[in-house]
Amino acid sequence: MPDRIYNFSPGPATLPYEVLVQAAKDIVNFNNKGIGLIEMSHRSKEFIQVVDDCEALLRELLAIPQNYKVLFLQGGASTQFAMVPMNLLGSGKTACYLNTGTWANKAIKEAKLFGTVDVAYTSELTNFDRVPGPADYTISAEAEYLYFVSNNTIFGTQYQNMPETEKIVVCDMSSDILSRAIDVSRFGLIFAGAQKNMGPAGCTVVIIREDLLDRCPDTIPTMFRYKTHADKGSMFNTPPCFAIYTIGLVLKWLKKIGGLAAIEKTNRDKAELLYQAIDKSDFYRGHARKDSRSLMNVTFNLPTPELETKFVREATAVSLDGLKGHRSVGGCRASIYNAFPYEGVEKLVGFMEEFEKKNG
Amino acid sequence: MPDRIYNFSPGPATLPYEVLVQAAKDIVNFNNKGIGLIEMSHRSKEFIQVVDDCEALLRELLAIPQNYKVLFLQGGASTQFAMVPMNLLGSGKTACYLNTGTWANKAIKEAKLFGTVDVAYTSELTNFDRVPGPADYTISAEAEYLYFVSNNTIFGTQYQNMPETEKIVVCDMSSDILSRAIDVSRFGLIFAGAQKNMGPAGCTVVIIREDLLDRCPDTIPTMFRYKTHADKGSMFNTPPCFAIYTIGLVLKWLKKIGGLAAIEKTNRDKAELLYQAIDKSDFYRGHARKDSRSLMNVTFNLPTPELETKFVREATAVSLDGLKGHRSVGGCRASIYNAFPYEGVEKLVGFMEEFEKKNG
Repeated sequence: MPDRIYNFSPGPATLPYEVLVQAAKDIVNFNNKGIGLIEMSHRSKEFIQVVDDCEALLRELLAIPQNYKVLFLQGGASTQFAMVPMNLLGSGKTACYLNTGTWANKAIKEAKLFGTVDVAYTSELTNFDRVPGPADYTISAEAEYLYFVSNNTIFGTQYQNMPETEKIVVCDMSSDILSRAIDVSRFGLIFAGAQKNMGPAGCTVVIIREDLLDRCPDTIPTMFRYKTHADKGSMFNTPPCFAIYTIGLVLKWLKKIGGLAAIEKTNRDKAELLYQAIDKSDFYRGHARKDSRSLMNVTFNLPTPELETKFVREATAVSLDGLKGHRSVGGCRASIYNAFPYEGVEKLVGFMEEFEKKNG
Repeated sequence: MPDRIYNFSPGPATLPYEVLVQAAKDIVNFNNKGIGLIEMSHRSKEFIQVVDDCEALLRELLAIPQNYKVLFLQGGASTQFAMVPMNLLGSGKTACYLNTGTWANKAIKEAKLFGTVDVAYTSELTNFDRVPGPADYTISAEAEYLYFVSNNTIFGTQYQNMPETEKIVVCDMSSDILSRAIDVSRFGLIFAGAQKNMGPAGCTVVIIREDLLDRCPDTIPTMFRYKTHADKGSMFNTPPCFAIYTIGLVLKWLKKIGGLAAIEKTNRDKAELLYQAIDKSDFYRGHARKDSRSLMNVTFNLPTPELETKFVREATAVSLDGLKGHRSVGGCRASIYNAFPYEGVEKLVGFMEEFEKKNG
């Protein structure tokens, strides 16, 4: 392996090195068939096998029940912000949204184009430093579905327990899918952009309960109906072949290292190490409230913006890359998704201690 | 180079071998920066350079005027079938479509969701074996725009001269963009899926005249407005990074070999060789009318379906892959896009002669 930097980017994000090496081989010559992966017809039996294998692994790892479809779409989570209400929210109907930051906010904006949005909770007043518990919001009786974002990349918050309701539950799981075990049967629809825990940018995974496929009004264009893609096994049109292939490799890697139970433990260990470093110091200050802390994105501030700039610059110089926080929070953000190595967190913690000594 | 097959796939399709080799290197370690291309933040200066370079090369090769925006979107041409009328066709307004086959037909279906569609021409009665000349259709006075498909992959037809009108011209150029010089200033909007002449699946290039960006009604979701993407340089959300990067490599290759003038000559030479082989024989019969023949997709039939099956099977055995025609035409289709080598066409022609001798 050449010298790899530690890549704390919030997404696209670090991938397992062995995945990159395998992808590099197959791009030039897939399975030694004399054709590159990205040149192959999506209708070829070889590529259909790639998609089938990827779906089967995802079903296995997440224990997706039989009555759910798995779709590999394009357009990112941002397209799902519109597709969810286009498919699930009839005109004049109401949906319940929990506003825990930028991505929830954007989803609310799109939903308003298609029906009434009841924002049952917002942590905007405390700059989205927390997610709600069950007592913090009420879902109105007429709501068609409950919508929430399980992990908030920008603010570094995450639901420790997923909201529960008898309503249809829709979850944007873009930044923590596959990071811990979930009970898929409690959801109506889960979607996630691939570029954090699953693979490269360019593919959005949708897991949808079959009975929800028929709710879409006739006025919605073909490509924006979940049923279009469900009926054709994500092959209604040319899918994002390379991204699906790479997701398959990442899932293989995840299975090999022990699946969701193992990765959740590693994720907890990594986050604990970093939060401990923050908590034992007065120099570093975590943004998220402790009961809402994310295992994926650790957000923290230093005493001054000047020190934050210096911290990020000096960290980059020692190959700790991508630590600049989002402008909404400022400061620093360490994104430590599934494929981010424990050693990288150790190195960051060491750097933090040293930086505090010099500048504290 | 390992033994490469000749890949006649209609798309995803053959790419230049040097592009695959370069992509393989950068996927593991981009520019020796210790980070893989597909792990890099789309907001990093390195990746923004990738997008800027790609756009600059496309502008140079196609001589795109300053008052046009170049967008790198997701969702394939199929998503454009809806986005075009969503953005350009006001409710109660009319658009003029030329129906030259499957893809035009699909676009017509989506446009009908947003306004009135005047199908001014169709070659359906002759199984889409031709495209119209200027005398074959009339654009109604009230039409907002004229829509056509410059090359019809399935039927193997292509406009030798692009339709001209004072109306806004919208063209699906998915299967022949960059195969010949065009005058972009004659178009209002050009779109093309990457996976034929430009790169891998997963990115759709849109070239749109700036004054058309403001026509979109407020009811259209954010992601489906061209203006959203134009205002943010295709970075409103995470773009399909790998596909854009690879398009950039393909454009570099295209420039190196001489740009559109050079590739058009090669494309003409390849197609002529193959059409000559068809024309001099009574055994092979071209599907497209001679004045509508495509330089990209050569469709032909053999005397019987049984011989066609045998032809495809035996061709595959000698590494002439992907020659099975679409079920709408049957028979054979040789897709010989920009990156398909002349030697592959020579080999196919040799195989055709031999096959005719044995089976004619």
